Amino acid sequence: MATIRQVTITPVAFRDPALLNRVGVHEPFALRSVIEVDCGDGVIGLGESYGDDAFLGLLRAVAPTLVGLDVFDLEIVARRVTAAVGPGTVTDNHGLTGTSSAAKTLRSVFSAFEVACLDAVGQLTGRPVVDLLGGRVREHVPFSAYLFYKWAGHPAAAPDEWGAALDADAIVRQAHRMISRYGFGSIKLKGGVLPPDEEFEAIQALAGAFPHHPLRWDPNAAWTVPTAIRIADKAAGILEYLEDPTAGIAGMAQVAREAPMPLATNMCVVGFEDIPEAVDARAIGVLLSDHHFWGGLRQTQYVAAVADTFDIGLSMHSNSHLGISLAAMVHVAASTPRLTYACDTHWPWKTEDVVAEPLEIVGGAVAVPRTPGLGVRLDRDALARLHQQYLTCGVRRRDDTGYMRRIRPDYRPGSW
Amino acid sequence: MATIRQVTITPVAFRDPALLNRVGVHEPFALRSVIEVDCGDGVIGLGESYGDDAFLGLLRAVAPTLVGLDVFDLEIVARRVTAAVGPGTVTDNHGLTGTSSAAKTLRSVFSAFEVACLDAVGQLTGRPVVDLLGGRVREHVPFSAYLFYKWAGHPAAAPDEWGAALDADAIVRQAHRMISRYGFGSIKLKGGVLPPDEEFEAIQALAGAFPHHPLRWDPNAAWTVPTAIRIADKAAGILEYLEDPTAGIAGMAQVAREAPMPLATNMCVVGFEDIPEAVDARAIGVLLSDHHFWGGLRQTQYVAAVADTFDIGLSMHSNSHLGISLAAMVHVAASTPRLTYACDTHWPWKTEDVVAEPLEIVGGAVAVPRTPGLGVRLDRDALARLHQQYLTCGVRRRDDTGYMRRIRPDYRPGSW
Ligand SMILES: [Mg+2]
Ligand SMILES: [Mg+2]
Repeated sequence: MATIRQVTITPVAFRDPALLNRVGVHEPFALRSVIEVDCGDGVIGLGESYGDDAFLGLLRAVAPTLVGLDVFDLEIVARRVTAAVGPGTVTDNHGLTGTSSAAKTLRSVFSAFEVACLDAVGQLTGRPVVDLLGGRVREHVPFSAYLFYKWAGHPAAAPDEWGAALDADAIVRQAHRMISRYGFGSIKLKGGVLPPDEEFEAIQALAGAFPHHPLRWDPNAAWTVPTAIRIADKAAGILEYLEDPTAGIAGMAQVAREAPMPLATNMCVVGFEDIPEAVDARAIGVLLSDHHFWGGLRQTQYVAAVADTFDIGLSMHSNSHLGISLAAMVHVAASTPRLTYACDTHWPWKTEDVVAEPLEIVGGAVAVPRTPGLGVRLDRDALARLHQQYLTCGVRRRDDTGYMRRIRPDYRPGSW
Repeated sequence: MATIRQVTITPVAFRDPALLNRVGVHEPFALRSVIEVDCGDGVIGLGESYGDDAFLGLLRAVAPTLVGLDVFDLEIVARRVTAAVGPGTVTDNHGLTGTSSAAKTLRSVFSAFEVACLDAVGQLTGRPVVDLLGGRVREHVPFSAYLFYKWAGHPAAAPDEWGAALDADAIVRQAHRMISRYGFGSIKLKGGVLPPDEEFEAIQALAGAFPHHPLRWDPNAAWTVPTAIRIADKAAGILEYLEDPTAGIAGMAQVAREAPMPLATNMCVVGFEDIPEAVDARAIGVLLSDHHFWGGLRQTQYVAAVADTFDIGLSMHSNSHLGISLAAMVHVAASTPRLTYACDTHWPWKTEDVVAEPLEIVGGAVAVPRTPGLGVRLDRDALARLHQQYLTCGVRRRDDTGYMRRIRPDYRPGSW
């Protein structure tokens, strides 16, 4: 009953708006992988992760080696992942989550299967995944409104329902629309797109329009240290945190010494091995965890414990994702005592899913499921449709810069 | 089925030899508490912890507040513990595990119940506790031979089977006897009893008699910084680690800068709040975890993750304990990837137990159980007998110094 009988990896593509970031623009389709760990008797654990070609190759190399294992024994699953991936393999996803490494790659591959195994264990024991992680410390997991500069639509395509957002007024409109729909209680602006003083106009406008919504701003390390210090000073009293204003632990530490608000990162600290230097340098005040590359839900609890020990705040990073990942994020966040900030999610930008009845964001938060496992189930028709879309969409790895350069051949990632 | 129906706390006393340490001598009886979390249908989760009066009072205050809770939901259990104990309560057990604090007290009380709940959850799901902690990274958990200076017996009592050990020759005999019986592959000498140069003779003799057994030495902070540095220098090449040679993080850091071997502690780092200073000062190379006061098995995994992140080695501390605690120690150690040293245990000194068929130390290690829960069950007759012994023995709190002073009124804890 607890034996893994079959493991299926299905790549899917879902429509994604033309969201701008430092390195370019989201392509018309975002890729994800859907992992199914079938334990028989209708127990199928679900996982979701990156869908880039190289990553899919690793998932597919691992999948058959898990058949026959005890789904409870995540340690043996981890060993099989290491054996199949090999110790020196490095995949990069897109350059927005810091340096890649062999350790990060192993953790990312393991995470995809760990979540699916925990979903199966939850179904087998009749318990929500959060109970397998020690129980819920909260009934609702708050998320932030994730605003993007964006085009009205992809080139030669119809505009999406959100329209263009290339200045402060449009960003405020986007915020109103998103908050009225989902009730978010805090706001994040993805920056690194325009010169920082222009983006700051949007931050100021947001602060004026939403005086009770904590604000965060993430230029993805687009700024030099002096620029970051200058902008941080300008933004004093407006931001709850400033995310990755500049690159690297040393640079972040320089900025942190001058900045009036905590600095957050999902770029300069992306693995346990980065933490000692960051602690020593006092580079960060907030760590954005992400179970997809930190090694799964349990390892995310461990990084939370490390952050807590060193009085570093905790938030959660997001890439474009579907309903399985949302559920996984919710369960681990529900088990984490000091989740000091609302989590990020790209959720509002998504119009398709593989999950039949996705968890809902209401009042800016997701109610933590009480049903067994992750609490979501596949819509097989939707999975087939999004897999077909994967087969025909032509995208095989995330490449925001390459896509942008097909539109603007001289594009270079912003640097100020 | 998963509801806690009844929680029983039974204090027990078991015979303990006259083991010497820095603060005095073990009394004729050691106290423990046995925790039973009854979920009905024969599912009774077991825990074991301290048996001192003040601690028992806290356990008893908590016990009835857990009835009706879902045994899976350790977070609510934790909240009930906090509510019943209160935020400012501090109990001290004996001064050999560092400073007491309200946080440490809460963690200690919670731990006793957490282990019992995990045992019940394991029984309910048909899984060994190690599987609830992420799976076994090892099949056997190694322990060290824990040597003590000791009297032949308690005053006015017959000698115990081990006889006196007050010099190097006797310590080596004790080691031979213990190792031939249990097969331990490493050796620990509890020091702080004799002047350090005398104790060093025993260390040298042990190194000569057991050249392939890693050695550790623990004077429980009996030495000044200069003494510790001098003795560490003398012991170069002989010890795998030197445990708590001196008191406090600052002093340990001074010694660490000069000592040729890593320093270990279960005294200057006894809670998550102690870790940042110790890391910053580079005070320790090895942390001795102990689920009894670090907050349970999951928190012990968290402290292991923190230690791992900062490249601090991990071993395990022991107080005198019975078979429930041994099983708990084995399960969490089996789940801990970087347990870099054999665990400590007072096991060989114990002649009575509440467990029917205790786990066995063979070849210096305990095979990790494959049966559901902790894998041990109560011997109800033995429990009744050891509880009766508790009622009549007269000991109500561990007080090695007080007992020593009844024998040697001028006794003062050693300081060199
Ligand atoms: Mg970011
Ligand atoms: Mg010690």
